[in-house]
Amino acid sequence: MSTVAYLGPAGTFTEAALRKLQRAGAFAGAEHDAEAGVTAVPVASPGEALRRVSAGEADYAVVAAESSVEGAVTATHDALVENPGLQIFAESTLDIQFSILTGTEEIAAKPHAITSIATHPVAYQQIRTWVDNHLPNAEFIPAPSNGEAARMVAQGRVDAAAAPDNAADLHGLARMAQGVADVSGAQTRFIALTAAQRNGAPRTGNDRTGIIFHVHNEPGALAGVLQEIAGHGVDLSRIESRPTRTGLGTYRFHLDMHGHIDDAPVAAAVAALERRCEKVQFLGSWPKAR
Amino acid sequence: MSTVAYLGPAGTFTEAALRKLQRAGAFAGAEHDAEAGVTAVPVASPGEALRRVSAGEADYAVVAAESSVEGAVTATHDALVENPGLQIFAESTLDIQFSILTGTEEIAAKPHAITSIATHPVAYQQIRTWVDNHLPNAEFIPAPSNGEAARMVAQGRVDAAAAPDNAADLHGLARMAQGVADVSGAQTRFIALTAAQRNGAPRTGNDRTGIIFHVHNEPGALAGVLQEIAGHGVDLSRIESRPTRTGLGTYRFHLDMHGHIDDAPVAAAVAALERRCEKVQFLGSWPKAR
Repeated sequence: MSTVAYLGPAGTFTEAALRKLQRAGAFAGAEHDAEAGVTAVPVASPGEALRRVSAGEADYAVVAAESSVEGAVTATHDALVENPGLQIFAESTLDIQFSILTGTEEIAAKPHAITSIATHPVAYQQIRTWVDNHLPNAEFIPAPSNGEAARMVAQGRVDAAAAPDNAADLHGLARMAQGVADVSGAQTRFIALTAAQRNGAPRTGNDRTGIIFHVHNEPGALAGVLQEIAGHGVDLSRIESRPTRTGLGTYRFHLDMHGHIDDAPVAAAVAALERRCEKVQFLGSWPKAR
Repeated sequence: MSTVAYLGPAGTFTEAALRKLQRAGAFAGAEHDAEAGVTAVPVASPGEALRRVSAGEADYAVVAAESSVEGAVTATHDALVENPGLQIFAESTLDIQFSILTGTEEIAAKPHAITSIATHPVAYQQIRTWVDNHLPNAEFIPAPSNGEAARMVAQGRVDAAAAPDNAADLHGLARMAQGVADVSGAQTRFIALTAAQRNGAPRTGNDRTGIIFHVHNEPGALAGVLQEIAGHGVDLSRIESRPTRTGLGTYRFHLDMHGHIDDAPVAAAVAALERRCEKVQFLGSWPKAR
């Protein structure tokens, strides 16, 4: 039996991603067969999920990495730095749509009577236009997660919540609307991590490799590093500056490359970075979703 | 009389940045003298502040751009794209420390009796360790702004708030602690914007230039663009991928360069980007803070 830490409570999109990865056999390592059970352990934040794995209290963590609407999930990327013993071995993308949930069908039928709607602030950014148009009297109440927002409705603390559809069944709520999303086609990419000493994900020919690096503080240093990567024929899929927390203007860079560390060009690019950068953290190689 | 839109209500760090810029004469354009009054108009989000200027409803906007702890303020960077007619003309940095505010001195003296503390989620990340150590029974209640958190204490909706110190005087609250920050030396950089048809900020010799660009979707495109900038002897200070919202894996890049558009190397680099990139948005040149 493996344990997987994830941003809870039950009913979050992260749990849905965990179940999708589980169905795909992602948690069936050498010591487990594909039928082996998985215990999903809800925790309060992406950082706590990674800390559990670092501390040996969980075998795996599943956390959100980026949204096609909101961009990088910075809490996750910062937690990667604080947990350098972990590596990514799988990813999964989910289409993000919300259901608007109320305590009873009666309330669901009276949108003007709804005075409060709870959801995670990132989720609210994705449904705000819908709320303005359909729930003109609702005040937004920020919740620590969408699952928690649904629980707040069940407890009578707010009139409505925006949450994944299955939260309605989990908490016995009515569905006022389904498939709500201001930007259609929104997706979120989730990553699965485990301790780095385990074997990484094998090369599939359609992989991604993650790196965090600090460059020396000198003119053109970042451009030089990226040119080095391009010179090995490796393409970047994503780059972010993140603050080092030592003051404004000092950054580390989080970068995703196309390819696997067992591909010769990626191996050569990573080796060149290790020579060139002040500090390099290898985040693993893993198959791209779909 | 000029109007300046900012993230309100009164008592936010953004308002403190606005007042600092005002004291420095930032809003004294050709048509105003340095003594001219400024009307500060609180709005609900950085996007709304920029929209007001785009619509001609405000002369200026002041919004947070990045934190040394939390990184880029993505709501601001996305709003820059949605308001292409604006340019940055000034910036200001503030040291970020929080005061812990309660309704009365009596409550402030009983930390174990405090069961709820409200603040903006980004602020909470910066005081969480302090709260865990000093207010063991306090649940975190997310607030849309620190100013609003202080107002929630005044209204009796929560026991405590973490907010800028002057919020205590604004709302008649007691100070339980001052100078609270898990990471010492935390700073936030704020930017001031106006309509692009006004004259930009003149070159000072210690300037910053902002650009947003989309690259053609082909291998090495981003590295090529950055090499082009480095080849002109221009150094980058910051780069972010932001999603284009058309699906996972498509990005635009937000980049700050050292130098002014009236510096020949910066002008040449920007001209090269305009030839090379699918789309380039010039965000202005402005003097660096301090």
